[in-house]
Amino acid sequence: MAIKGVLRPGFAQVRVLDMKEAIIHYRDRIGLTVVSTEADGRVYLKAYDEFDRHSIILRECDEAGIDYMSFKVDNEESLNHYEEQIRKAGFDVTPVEAGEQPGVGRRIHFTAPTGHRFDLYVQMELSNNGPMTNNPDVSQLDPTGMKAIRFDHCLLYGRDLDGTQNLFVDILGFSVSEQVIDDDTGMVIATFLTCSNKAHDLALVRHDEDGKLHHVSFLVEDWSAIRDAADIMTRYDISRDIGPTRHGITRGQTIYFFDPSGNRNEVFAGGYHFYPDNPVRIWQASSVGKAIFYYERELNDRFMTVVT
Amino acid sequence: MAIKGVLRPGFAQVRVLDMKEAIIHYRDRIGLTVVSTEADGRVYLKAYDEFDRHSIILRECDEAGIDYMSFKVDNEESLNHYEEQIRKAGFDVTPVEAGEQPGVGRRIHFTAPTGHRFDLYVQMELSNNGPMTNNPDVSQLDPTGMKAIRFDHCLLYGRDLDGTQNLFVDILGFSVSEQVIDDDTGMVIATFLTCSNKAHDLALVRHDEDGKLHHVSFLVEDWSAIRDAADIMTRYDISRDIGPTRHGITRGQTIYFFDPSGNRNEVFAGGYHFYPDNPVRIWQASSVGKAIFYYERELNDRFMTVVT
Amino acid sequence: MAIKGVLRPGFAQVRVLDMKEAIIHYRDRIGLTVVSTEADGRVYLKAYDEFDRHSIILRECDEAGIDYMSFKVDNEESLNHYEEQIRKAGFDVTPVEAGEQPGVGRRIHFTAPTGHRFDLYVQMELSNNGPMTNNPDVSQLDPTGMKAIRFDHCLLYGRDLDGTQNLFVDILGFSVSEQVIDDDTGMVIATFLTCSNKAHDLALVRHDEDGKLHHVSFLVEDWSAIRDAADIMTRYDISRDIGPTRHGITRGQTIYFFDPSGNRNEVFAGGYHFYPDNPVRIWQASSVGKAIFYYERELNDRFMTVVT
Amino acid sequence: MAIKGVLRPGFAQVRVLDMKEAIIHYRDRIGLTVVSTEADGRVYLKAYDEFDRHSIILRECDEAGIDYMSFKVDNEESLNHYEEQIRKAGFDVTPVEAGEQPGVGRRIHFTAPTGHRFDLYVQMELSNNGPMTNNPDVSQLDPTGMKAIRFDHCLLYGRDLDGTQNLFVDILGFSVSEQVIDDDTGMVIATFLTCSNKAHDLALVRHDEDGKLHHVSFLVEDWSAIRDAADIMTRYDISRDIGPTRHGITRGQTIYFFDPSGNRNEVFAGGYHFYPDNPVRIWQASSVGKAIFYYERELNDRFMTVVT
Repeated sequence: MAIKGVLRPGFAQVRVLDMKEAIIHYRDRIGLTVVSTEADGRVYLKAYDEFDRHSIILRECDEAGIDYMSFKVDNEESLNHYEEQIRKAGFDVTPVEAGEQPGVGRRIHFTAPTGHRFDLYVQMELSNNGPMTNNPDVSQLDPTGMKAIRFDHCLLYGRDLDGTQNLFVDILGFSVSEQVIDDDTGMVIATFLTCSNKAHDLALVRHDEDGKLHHVSFLVEDWSAIRDAADIMTRYDISRDIGPTRHGITRGQTIYFFDPSGNRNEVFAGGYHFYPDNPVRIWQASSVGKAIFYYERELNDRFMTVVT
Repeated sequence: MAIKGVLRPGFAQVRVLDMKEAIIHYRDRIGLTVVSTEADGRVYLKAYDEFDRHSIILRECDEAGIDYMSFKVDNEESLNHYEEQIRKAGFDVTPVEAGEQPGVGRRIHFTAPTGHRFDLYVQMELSNNGPMTNNPDVSQLDPTGMKAIRFDHCLLYGRDLDGTQNLFVDILGFSVSEQVIDDDTGMVIATFLTCSNKAHDLALVRHDEDGKLHHVSFLVEDWSAIRDAADIMTRYDISRDIGPTRHGITRGQTIYFFDPSGNRNEVFAGGYHFYPDNPVRIWQASSVGKAIFYYERELNDRFMTVVT
Repeated sequence: MAIKGVLRPGFAQVRVLDMKEAIIHYRDRIGLTVVSTEADGRVYLKAYDEFDRHSIILRECDEAGIDYMSFKVDNEESLNHYEEQIRKAGFDVTPVEAGEQPGVGRRIHFTAPTGHRFDLYVQMELSNNGPMTNNPDVSQLDPTGMKAIRFDHCLLYGRDLDGTQNLFVDILGFSVSEQVIDDDTGMVIATFLTCSNKAHDLALVRHDEDGKLHHVSFLVEDWSAIRDAADIMTRYDISRDIGPTRHGITRGQTIYFFDPSGNRNEVFAGGYHFYPDNPVRIWQASSVGKAIFYYERELNDRFMTVVT
Repeated sequence: MAIKGVLRPGFAQVRVLDMKEAIIHYRDRIGLTVVSTEADGRVYLKAYDEFDRHSIILRECDEAGIDYMSFKVDNEESLNHYEEQIRKAGFDVTPVEAGEQPGVGRRIHFTAPTGHRFDLYVQMELSNNGPMTNNPDVSQLDPTGMKAIRFDHCLLYGRDLDGTQNLFVDILGFSVSEQVIDDDTGMVIATFLTCSNKAHDLALVRHDEDGKLHHVSFLVEDWSAIRDAADIMTRYDISRDIGPTRHGITRGQTIYFFDPSGNRNEVFAGGYHFYPDNPVRIWQASSVGKAIFYYERELNDRFMTVVT
């Protein structure tokens, strides 16, 4: 039966303060392609190794942050099933009509207990600029900028971490790969959720404000691509948060940095392959430094405080 | 719902001509750990990043090759379901009792149309030497030898490729990620099957002899680990087939080499993340060189002829 | 006193059959910059990390190969000294006037016993496109194509290997880093010469035709850049000879490939740091496979036969 | 003439508070080999890729720091010449007899204006454990720990930076590769000196206390080796200062960390190839953050204050 139900993070709609600067950042620096700019001003982008039409939507706004993160589902039957289950669990589910985004079929929208909007959808047009499928080259063109392979995951901050976690685990079938817990009370402080073999597709940190974005992450090839991304950050004076370093959680190799609107981005490489029969990896909060920044072994202030 | 049914290649039992030499090869060169040597002479090994008790079993024999490849299944319900479906499809299913291998629960055994024995099982003891789960380090000890992360996949050769492919796709829920087809007839010459986000968990090549092993593959970290493995091959005079190179199929970075019994091994890194909604990537046989050895763009003779 | 006398390979003038194709190859694929095209049709190029005006000159001609390789010398006193010593050793020395190449001062020209023309010179204009010198970035722009760092060395084929070696060692102060010798007679079959900490700045192979070019080599950053170069070779269907692999000699990581005129190029990374007090490393001809292609451990036919 | 006079940093004698802990650090973590322990308690170590007998000497003492850094010189004539020139410049030169260290010939000792002791010497026994010279493998054994290739350079702190710089440039023939200068006054705050193609063999920072050690640096293969070293630092709880990062100066990829006595070490990879005709690269003090830590673009407090 293999991979069923929720397939992956499909796209994220990110709010930016200045579209022109944002495009330079996401296209020229991170290396995405602009797919289209629509009448309502939203700009659609994709990474070179994604089959679907787009994965990042930029919306100009006077407040940075994330509008929603959307997951692709394998078929209409699953989508209907999730819709029913989410309603049963007491959440409002709002339909979003096909075409609200170009090339995207109907979505269902719900707001999770941490105040984040998520969508589920089944249909998106294939890109005419995706990976080759006939005698394919590794990539059609030389990747550019930081050579982002795909939109990978988000880390979101909010209060009712347990509520959102339960929704994703119990209803949407995600697994918990790792958690940070309070040494004394066992309270979950951070949780890492996956619907795939990736170490995480969605991560949540308990935080006293709802609906916040910690970072939008892009996959890159390996540790060398992490270094090359760091070179680009300095060359173009991009605000860097931390890295090159490694996460203890996921083992991923990483740099956190900021887009011109203050949204945190990540380039991410590596990480183990997760299977649902793996034991959950547990970090005590007293080891949280090592959990988050494996080489530094301590958090920087920004990790817990700077969100959009 | 995420990952369901068949989870992954769990273990392979490989026949070797000389156990002492084989242990030096798989333990000291590839970097596996010997878990146990049993009364019947079989030697059980595992890679450092696997949670389960073992993943490679060596059996001394006067003919090299593979006895069987076994897939781990998520639960007994799935196992029962597969058993029923495989029988319905007209295949004999033989039970293998729990304990036939130390620490492994009951298995079901069937012989696929290409003459290969496969097992399915649900239970295996956790290793006391697997990845850490409490404030885990990236690895507990420095990995050794070629630093194999896990047993990754097999490529098997046999006649009725379509029959085995159909069994894995229709009954076991695998996806086809890539195929090599005859330019004129469209006949499938090679097929790459996955039950996960990996580009392949099992690969099959059409060949005029049944039940043959082309290679057993081990995952390594990245392109640097591929180079380090190549250095070890020369230092210890290990018979190399080809590489470092890249596969067009899967994009994986690779070296093929031989164990002292003539079984082909692979160290493999990278490769794209597969999703079941991805289009199948098709290679014409006229491009098979590039498909298999992306940099050489031609097959070596050994690829089609040397199997065990 | 440090580095004195001959500093490095400064430039090579290479003959190409079709200038348009050659520019695409050296500029767009290897990643050099075109500095100028002169009235006589010669095209001057440089790598992004070189301070001097140019390092590769392409000359259109109906026969591929190398016109000359030129070494930069530290000062006029050294140049005069070499001129005198070369004459004393019985070689013709021909002056080449300043300005024969744009931005280059006077050169002295001699033909070595293997039939290769070499030049020595002191002065070359600095590029306005070289490495930054005030609060420098790692590079001013993102490197392109194979990201060649600099012109690194040449391997040349000819009969009187001893004669050319002696000239470079005895007169120009080069050191021998490694040699391949006949197992029985001790005759030197290949010799690797350096005037620096590089494992080689010039290499020579004994061959029954004089004045031949085996390859012109370009430095790239590391093993990852070697892989990226290989990807480019396949993407743009560049004729590859061998690699990614490693040389036993120098330990360098390498790909040999061909320009559209049939001149062999190399991208090269790594290699040890040489010091003149190092013992000479000796390879028996019976191990020449490993010496040249450390992973393959055997020569391909092209290595000894295809030269321009 | 090539490389003449001072060849390279040959060895450094480092003071450690606890020899047992120091050996674990330098041998098991950094990957050096213990060559001998002598009657006076000094322990001699070498890196796997060095031909000479030893490169690091540990001396137990109640104060950490560096006793001296010694440079290897090409021949006795040069040594005599330097001795004479150093005396002429008004410095005391003290002879150190052959055999003061096992396997090392006579040395000359002088104290530079920054209060650091330096030695020059010509003779050291070859190691029986150095790089192979007959059909050599890339290394004889698998490198261990952080896989240090060689002792690379030191950064020293003291008051009269100009005095020490002048001694190395004017008498010993070093070149200045890079400098950090005060924006307003042009006063040199840090200077990077090389006697080779390396971007630095010795670095000096102006500091209000003399004779201080900032770090002893070890070369590693590349950016992947930097990551592997970082993994080891966390696995064995080694005190890390900063990195993985890159220096703007030299472009080297780096981690600073501390031995158990508080001496700072570095693993270093990459960096450009220097030639004496290269322009000096100048950093304004206002850009010193980027100069030292290219990715962070700011100094940490420890860089200027923690020395031994």
